Amino acid sequence: MKAAKKYWKGLVVVVAAMAMFAWACSSGNGTGSVGGSADEIIEERGLTDEDVAAAVSTYTPSGVLDEYVMFASGGHSGQVFVIGMPSMRLLKTIGVFTPEPWQGWGYGSVAQEEIFASGNAGGQDLAWADTHHPALSETEGDYDGEWLFINDKANARVATIDLRDFETKQFVKNPIALNDHGGTMVTPDTEWIIEGGQYAAPLGWEYAPLESYNDEYKGMVTLWKFDRESGRIDENASFALELPPYWQDLCDAGKLASDGWIVCNSFNTERATGVDPADPENTEPIEAGASANENDYLHVINLEKAAEVAANGGTTEVNGFPVVPLETSIDEGLLYFVPEPKSPHGADVTPDGEYIVVAGKLDPHVTIYSWDKILGAIEAGDLETDEYGVPIIPLDTAKEAQVELGLGPLHTQFDDQGYAYTSLFLDSAIARWKLGDWTLEGSIPVQYNIGHLAAAEGDTVSPDGKYVVALNKWSIDRFFHPGPLYPQNFQLIDVTNVDPDSDTNGMQLLYDMPIGMGEPHYAQIIKADKLEPWAVYPEVGWDPETQSVKADAPQAGNEGVVRDGNNVTVNMTAIRSHFAPERVEVNQGDHVTWNITNVDTSEDATHGFAMPGYNISLSLEPGETQTVEFDATQSGVFTYYCSEFCSALHLEMAGYFLVNSG
Amino acid sequence: MKAAKKYWKGLVVVVAAMAMFAWACSSGNGTGSVGGSADEIIEERGLTDEDVAAAVSTYTPSGVLDEYVMFASGGHSGQVFVIGMPSMRLLKTIGVFTPEPWQGWGYGSVAQEEIFASGNAGGQDLAWADTHHPALSETEGDYDGEWLFINDKANARVATIDLRDFETKQFVKNPIALNDHGGTMVTPDTEWIIEGGQYAAPLGWEYAPLESYNDEYKGMVTLWKFDRESGRIDENASFALELPPYWQDLCDAGKLASDGWIVCNSFNTERATGVDPADPENTEPIEAGASANENDYLHVINLEKAAEVAANGGTTEVNGFPVVPLETSIDEGLLYFVPEPKSPHGADVTPDGEYIVVAGKLDPHVTIYSWDKILGAIEAGDLETDEYGVPIIPLDTAKEAQVELGLGPLHTQFDDQGYAYTSLFLDSAIARWKLGDWTLEGSIPVQYNIGHLAAAEGDTVSPDGKYVVALNKWSIDRFFHPGPLYPQNFQLIDVTNVDPDSDTNGMQLLYDMPIGMGEPHYAQIIKADKLEPWAVYPEVGWDPETQSVKADAPQAGNEGVVRDGNNVTVNMTAIRSHFAPERVEVNQGDHVTWNITNVDTSEDATHGFAMPGYNISLSLEPGETQTVEFDATQSGVFTYYCSEFCSALHLEMAGYFLVNSG
Repeated sequence: MKAAKKYWKGLVVVVAAMAMFAWACSSGNGTGSVGGSADEIIEERGLTDEDVAAAVSTYTPSGVLDEYVMFASGGHSGQVFVIGMPSMRLLKTIGVFTPEPWQGWGYGSVAQEEIFASGNAGGQDLAWADTHHPALSETEGDYDGEWLFINDKANARVATIDLRDFETKQFVKNPIALNDHGGTMVTPDTEWIIEGGQYAAPLGWEYAPLESYNDEYKGMVTLWKFDRESGRIDENASFALELPPYWQDLCDAGKLASDGWIVCNSFNTERATGVDPADPENTEPIEAGASANENDYLHVINLEKAAEVAANGGTTEVNGFPVVPLETSIDEGLLYFVPEPKSPHGADVTPDGEYIVVAGKLDPHVTIYSWDKILGAIEAGDLETDEYGVPIIPLDTAKEAQVELGLGPLHTQFDDQGYAYTSLFLDSAIARWKLGDWTLEGSIPVQYNIGHLAAAEGDTVSPDGKYVVALNKWSIDRFFHPGPLYPQNFQLIDVTNVDPDSDTNGMQLLYDMPIGMGEPHYAQIIKADKLEPWAVYPEVGWDPETQSVKADAPQAGNEGVVRDGNNVTVNMTAIRSHFAPERVEVNQGDHVTWNITNVDTSEDATHGFAMPGYNISLSLEPGETQTVEFDATQSGVFTYYCSEFCSALHLEMAGYFLVNSG
Repeated sequence: MKAAKKYWKGLVVVVAAMAMFAWACSSGNGTGSVGGSADEIIEERGLTDEDVAAAVSTYTPSGVLDEYVMFASGGHSGQVFVIGMPSMRLLKTIGVFTPEPWQGWGYGSVAQEEIFASGNAGGQDLAWADTHHPALSETEGDYDGEWLFINDKANARVATIDLRDFETKQFVKNPIALNDHGGTMVTPDTEWIIEGGQYAAPLGWEYAPLESYNDEYKGMVTLWKFDRESGRIDENASFALELPPYWQDLCDAGKLASDGWIVCNSFNTERATGVDPADPENTEPIEAGASANENDYLHVINLEKAAEVAANGGTTEVNGFPVVPLETSIDEGLLYFVPEPKSPHGADVTPDGEYIVVAGKLDPHVTIYSWDKILGAIEAGDLETDEYGVPIIPLDTAKEAQVELGLGPLHTQFDDQGYAYTSLFLDSAIARWKLGDWTLEGSIPVQYNIGHLAAAEGDTVSPDGKYVVALNKWSIDRFFHPGPLYPQNFQLIDVTNVDPDSDTNGMQLLYDMPIGMGEPHYAQIIKADKLEPWAVYPEVGWDPETQSVKADAPQAGNEGVVRDGNNVTVNMTAIRSHFAPERVEVNQGDHVTWNITNVDTSEDATHGFAMPGYNISLSLEPGETQTVEFDATQSGVFTYYCSEFCSALHLEMAGYFLVNSG
């Protein structure tokens, strides 16, 4: 094949360029014909060798599993997307903060209603979120495949997802803030989950006029204690640090050399609060006001010491939650600033923990800070302070290097060959640069407006290399556009090769994946073989909320309907292809408790439970039990049925729920 | 390339078979390495010529648009999925019956709240659905790319989606039934949208004991009148037909030769209602009871005549909705039955309108009925009746042919070469058979448990051929499984080739697409160039609910906050990268009306509007205006912000909403 390829290659470069142009421009009809041999199709479509390489690199034949799994936030969809790589196929949308009826998330389950209720704020039910930064649990700085955390920027919440069943188990609502951004990130052994704030407000988001901004408004970072044994965040062992009313942005945990510390960058240290209609002098919108200064402040926080201070009572309470006051942080040496140019968006610790890379989105450089130098400056003391009294380590003291990469640098990830990759929003490109040498090696264009990027295990102590994904915010002409709301564009890039003679330094674009179901901001990519998901629940009668068998779950043989006054309890089993019981009659106004167990134990033998007119939808995976409670307010005839196409007779898997008006 | 391929091919067959086996079985890690030439990757991965053909057939380079667009129902996700073909990429999840915050669907918009309210049943808010059968609007029996309809099986509703902006515009709640199945299907010029029932219940779903099933419970089919000018179903011009309490299943409209008629199949003509706990004799579950008879009844309905009867007052009212009584249908010759073997699931009219193909899921044949013969038998009269008095045309009189295909035939679609394709659920295969010859030509295995299938424009008067998609319900070992809830598997099959010597008659599997966000039941595939979606809204201040400019939409220059007693109106514009106004202050308890226009006019320049603590999320596409109303119940400081990463300064696109507790 190789010999033939050589003579063919020269021709194809010219022909293919012409063919591709004609083809891409012909009325949105780009895929040519099918139904030939590989060679015929390649010739007919005018595919270059690079095209064929991309096609066969990402090709994942039926039944072959993906090597990597990406977890991407859903943005204001409120969910998490699970994507196989390199095939770039959506394996699951995990329902997190937004109810999702296909997976039966938030549509009747009593246990799930409790989870949702725990995420409400100020008495308001919240049924969506703006999920931003997923964080996989780590052991010794490496992903361990056990848990996933994600924040809600819109309402300052954190969710815990169990990677045995890929289901959400917990919401925690931040008691002191109503929005966040710098979360979630985890410490190297997942002892702490970081949730940094964003838009400053009085702690507890109590009313205070904007005139009092400098004094009454605060920044914050919250440290949630994760208890691996229970698989839950322990709210009672968690605490926060009060910060100046700068807008904290992204955080990262130190590791190895910098274990025990965390960093958060910030913007709007100018403390702009926008045009004031009552003040004709104040006409500067936030975007201008917040971009005025040359530098903002990288926050350097001694987490280990802060946890000690918190544990020893060095906190005040806000809405019952312990907060280390800013004064205490200053006095105890918990918080330091380092100037960082200019409205940065990323603060990323290198795999060895020696450096922090900060990308200033309005500055063409990344700035690399040395932990050694920072710790030395802290040790040496004698530092000037900002107006809140926080000590400032001079930029030149802490700086190891600056590398000019291009316009709009945002976020940096790492590979296994000593390279760093930084997204360039304004240039629509990814820059590859060398750690230690601090040299730009090349860049690859992406389509378009890249925000974050994700590299395979690229923020752990041992990145894998191989793949980088560009999380492009705009797709414009990349896809058929389904109306005016365009999908985002995840682009899969092969970073295995290094070729100084190539335009892209050897990086190659493999695949464009439209994201037509949300607005991901951030993603993490784990080797698939680190994940050990259950194929079916371990036992029949399994309660996913406790991850244990529920003692009184319905089992085959004990089905039935029990009445106690106006309380009716239904104990039901589901199996291919019937429900038992198939008839349930109650009186209007009865309170109904409906327990259901899927007693099927075969892989993929999920049953749905749909109850018309009562807004109930459950998904019962093999072995799972759930309980629904409702008042039979509406009289009439309601036919419940299995909403999963579980067998050839799935339409027959139904039953009659009769509500007698008496 | 070809010369080399020949010598290489012999070797590769053996090597590849071994390599693929080892590779597919190695710890879920199947994708080999990347970063080489096409030849190197093909060799290293052991890809066969067929693999390479599949890879390059579906390969869609960056910026090349898909040739086809598939609309798939979301099942109990309640949504519609828009998928590009042949790349099999999800372009958009359209929010239909389930609120979806990324696209701002159902999270605050007053106009959308009205749409949702119109879909409620019996005073119960419904926030999900079981969408089953999408139907593209047709002109002269061909897709015209203008509208999409979809039913909700769980609550008997129909939604109208506008394909200019791919957004839902209307719900209609069926006033006489609480569940459906045989919808939506359209007549050849989209005058009528068919919604056939499923589980029999008293009309209006009023309580009646199951003992009265044969008399009080009813089947139904509803004909919704579509008004193309307003782009809405006209509920006042619609009507239903009362049917016997058989469980109607799928319907189809006649076309060309059979224009003016519709068909619906049925099952459970046995009228099984399940195990009765009060009757020890009655121990037969529905699945068995409903499968007892050899035949059920194909319903043949004279729609043209029925519409005349309804228009001329031949109806009674149920919940204010006109229903043609069964007696009238019999007297007026609107309804006929033809026996159909055995619990069928598909009734599909051939492209020329001459035949109806019925697949009996418990019978290995498809039965082909001739419209000519059916109409002849109706003409001839002298028919026996079922126990409700409906005339029955004998099977042998109406039958044109039967073709034995395999186990579990369900659904049939057509191509441009005179072939029909029928899904075989139990065999996990698609059978190809020849119209006119009535011969099975071959079949291709699919993975696994195929329900429906979709062929390119395969249910129109002019099918395209080329592609068939298998909607497989189970995926089992096809993908990395994200916990116990497995994705479905859409398999793209190339049906261009006909090769009697091949195992599959020349059909080739190209691609496996996991469906990890819903449970599609049915799909339609349209040529992409028939769709003319808007890139941006036509004018600034556009109201998507009326598809016209809103006279009082905020525009650049007239932003502000107006107070009238306790009513506060905010007029806001959004543009990269700020909101105007950036500060809004109200008193606790005020009623707030918040109007927002996205005054950006660039393609893809969408802004989101997120309001913490108030459960509000909007997506404002370029030019779009929306209105949100709420009571400022919660006092405090709330930072609204743009939830789309719209520019390098998107984090700065925010403002302060202050609610003063006074």
